[in-house]
Parts: sequence; structure tokens; C-alpha cells
Amino acid sequence: MNKRRNFIKTVTAASAAAFLPITSISKDMKNQKMIHQVFFWLHDKNDTEEFLSKAVPMLGQCKTVGNFIPGTPAPTEARDVVDHSWHVSCTLFFDSLEDQAAYQVDPLHLEFIEKYSSMWKTVKVYDIAI
Amino acid sequence: MNKRRNFIKTVTAASAAAFLPITSISKDMKNQKMIHQVFFWLHDKNDTEEFLSKAVPMLGQCKTVGNFIPGTPAPTEARDVVDHSWHVSCTLFFDSLEDQAAYQVDPLHLEFIEKYSSMWKTVKVYDIAI
Repeated sequence: MNKRRNFIKTVTAASAAAFLPITSISKDMKNQKMIHQVFFWLHDKNDTEEFLSKAVPMLGQCKTVGNFIPGTPAPTEARDVVDHSWHVSCTLFFDSLEDQAAYQVDPLHLEFIEKYSSMWKTVKVYDIAI
Repeated sequence: MNKRRNFIKTVTAASAAAFLPITSISKDMKNQKMIHQVFFWLHDKNDTEEFLSKAVPMLGQCKTVGNFIPGTPAPTEARDVVDHSWHVSCTLFFDSLEDQAAYQVDPLHLEFIEKYSSMWKTVKVYDIAI
């Protein structure tokens, strides 16, 4: 029952946002919760552990981050639609679009980029209104 | 303080998994939590509301889904690294790799594919061990 309740709660909150046209969402930046989903492809996959233990935690410590989940590719079935080629992911929850914008210029985020950007060859981001 | 506690809790749990080599994770499928992150590009973006209200909720109702968060592109700043081109996302949390494997053959998931796969032109998936 808990699981079902959580599901309904999540869907209700998410759907309310999802059905708003983008322009309406923009006007309501303070209340638009979002996921900032980042994938890193490193130059050297042997750097994965160092990147996870030293670099990535800096992102989770940025002030406006609501929840922070680092990850690595899950060993699920190989299928054409599944991309397992990346090395490290960060799933960041923000309470508003403004909080995500503030995160982009958080001193710790900027320090992370300065110190560690040489370790990745590609970064890909999906910003998800929920 | 709550936010910091949640962060530490999340990072501790996630890092423990993240530092395991993939082979070890495979042997521990029952305890490997994961995010199944799906992005849909629809043939017609005008179908977004119908897809969100009728199709996508079927996925959240599959038995082994731990948490389910539908989404749409957040109107964040346009940057080269950010992909805003998709129309609908589903963020699904599973308690184990086995639960995700079961989800793939859940009758509701299969019904979703049969009924609604004609609405999307591309689907892209990232499976994230957390």
C-alpha cells in the first residue's frame, strides 16, 4: 500500500507540472521541481573510482542540491535502446529551476569543473521537469 | 540539516555500489538498487499530454517498480551539453536488478508497448546502478 501511495503521490505532483506548457512552467520557476541528470564519459575508464570518490561528491555538496545520487552503468541486458557506454552519472534533484540555476554557479561546482574537467571527454545532461 | 543528512545517506549507499566492479554487482543482483531512466521522442509532440496521461501511468503501475517519476523537458538554459529535444521521460527506481528484469516482462509493460509504441519514434534508456 505504501508503494502505491507513493506512486500516486509522485504521479499527481509530476503530472501537474508535466501538463503545463513550457511557457507556464517558466513563469513558475520557484515551484518547478526538477531532476538534473548528468552522464560523464571519462578519457580513461580506470579513473572511474577516483572520479566517484573525489570529484563527484563536490557536486552533492553544492548548497541548493536537494538530493544527490551518483551512479555507474547497471549491468542490465544489452539492448539497442540502452546506453551502457558512459562511466559515471549524477542524478540531482532540485526544488526549483532557480535552485538548479544557482547550482550552475555555485563555487564548489565551478571548482569541480576547474579541477576535474580534464578527466572527461564528454558530458551529457537531461533536465527533467517533474 | 535534514538535507545534509539525506545527502550523506544517499552518497554512502550509492558509493558502496558505485565502487564495486561490474562483475561484483552482477553477483549481487538482489541488493543492487538502480534507476531505469527512459526518454521518449514522440512522432508528434502534440501527443505529449495523451502519452503522459494514458500511456506512461501504466509503467508506474508495474508490480516491481519502487518509485516512478514521469517528466518533461525542464526549461533550463540552452547549452550544448543539455539535450532538450525529447518529449517525455520516466525515471523508475528499482530495489534490485531482478526487479528491473521482471518489469521488462510485466504484463502491463508489454500492454503499454503494444498499445503505445506507435506514438514514439525513438526511445533511449540509461540503467544506473546506485
